[in-house]
Amino acid sequence: MRLARFKSGEEVFSGIIEGEIITQLKSGDVLGRAGGFDTLDLRKGERVFNLDAVTLLAPTLPSKIIAIGLNYKAHAEEFNKELPKEPMIFLKPPTAVIGPGEDIIYPSHMSRRIDYEGELGVVIGKKAKDIAPEVAKEHILGYTCFNDVTARDLQKTDTQYTRAKGFDTFAPIGPWIETDLRPETLRIKTIFKGEVVQDSPTSDMVFGVFELLSFVSSVMTLFPGDVIATGTPSGIGKMHYGDEVEIFIEGIGSLKNRVIKK
Amino acid sequence: MRLARFKSGEEVFSGIIEGEIITQLKSGDVLGRAGGFDTLDLRKGERVFNLDAVTLLAPTLPSKIIAIGLNYKAHAEEFNKELPKEPMIFLKPPTAVIGPGEDIIYPSHMSRRIDYEGELGVVIGKKAKDIAPEVAKEHILGYTCFNDVTARDLQKTDTQYTRAKGFDTFAPIGPWIETDLRPETLRIKTIFKGEVVQDSPTSDMVFGVFELLSFVSSVMTLFPGDVIATGTPSGIGKMHYGDEVEIFIEGIGSLKNRVIKK
Repeated sequence: MRLARFKSGEEVFSGIIEGEIITQLKSGDVLGRAGGFDTLDLRKGERVFNLDAVTLLAPTLPSKIIAIGLNYKAHAEEFNKELPKEPMIFLKPPTAVIGPGEDIIYPSHMSRRIDYEGELGVVIGKKAKDIAPEVAKEHILGYTCFNDVTARDLQKTDTQYTRAKGFDTFAPIGPWIETDLRPETLRIKTIFKGEVVQDSPTSDMVFGVFELLSFVSSVMTLFPGDVIATGTPSGIGKMHYGDEVEIFIEGIGSLKNRVIKK
Repeated sequence: MRLARFKSGEEVFSGIIEGEIITQLKSGDVLGRAGGFDTLDLRKGERVFNLDAVTLLAPTLPSKIIAIGLNYKAHAEEFNKELPKEPMIFLKPPTAVIGPGEDIIYPSHMSRRIDYEGELGVVIGKKAKDIAPEVAKEHILGYTCFNDVTARDLQKTDTQYTRAKGFDTFAPIGPWIETDLRPETLRIKTIFKGEVVQDSPTSDMVFGVFELLSFVSSVMTLFPGDVIATGTPSGIGKMHYGDEVEIFIEGIGSLKNRVIKK
């Protein structure tokens, strides 16, 4: 199943995409209200739209985005970092979220170098606290493309990543959530200005998706709609005004965004 | 004005405390729904309760908690750290929030040392993005007590603070929000097992409240109900099962919580 959030006129819905149509959820824009409930109601409502007549939005508005550092072997090598013994977690604020086609705003008042980082995003489907890896799957709604945009210069100078990774628009996500996927062997690519710059199987992750969910849930409670960004493969690089960046994941699709001047 | 959130039976309200009574807000539990709107509606509703007949809750459920590291000179000295040239920001997840009287759960599955850190919490009242220090005040609803509970061992071993400061129950906040205060010269104390262990004027902050709000808002949009935890003075120390910790701020009051076994 393919889940999305979308706008038709001034109304916002969560819905299910089937071919060229999208059907609203009975529960309204439930993917836009993360944090307040334990499970998602995904029953179809009555209104049906043509996919090309609506605007797709970020497929979830998470109450938390938990991102993972150095989770691909080759990416750790490109930074000359040792592989972590446990997952290295950090938070991106919900205000960083943008959807497919929305613009990444260059924070030129503070940074001189911003990078793309293509990642597999895991969307939570059921409240999760102290979950074993063996049952983590039951708490996952599905998967989406995620771009962990990073002000590389600030990441190096600040001790904490919060500013470098926390600017408004620094968490593009979408275009939708694919629920029927096995996350272990997907191919993830970043295409920057028409050129493939990141290309890796998710099997190169140091900690797999289920292990990550288990670890994070042993620290903090996860709610439906929350997102775990599972780390980026090697090949990161810098972006300038006007550049388009595309995160492509096999079985999901493409998330495209452009960088603009503040 | 003194704003709180409270429970009466199974119902939850935001309200205004006057003496021994508390009047619900017309807008319902608006302080429990941060993130979704630009300003707060603080008009009184019809229902009035006796303060001693209700249970006070965390006075806001923030969509973001932005905490500041090393913001008191004497605290930076106790860690042998240089004073930061810019505010050092990090995030605590909303799931860490607990209210007055609620228990701090010791995450003994991962940590062997957890510390109190008494702080002045600034609660946002009006959407804030790229705000100058001179007008920051207009975006502040008020002030409250905050305990930036920290697993000190994990803070030292992890590169990022997210795990060390992100466990569920690691953000006690309350007991209420005081709106009519000048934040520059308040006295902040932590009382641990009956002994004063932190005692400092807020005038010892490296970056003042308005400067902090301005800096954070130049990175990420702040919404009503969001919290900036302004850093802790010197005197931090460890807690064990059964210990009670009290954060007292002049002009606000006391936030008390007890540590329990997971």
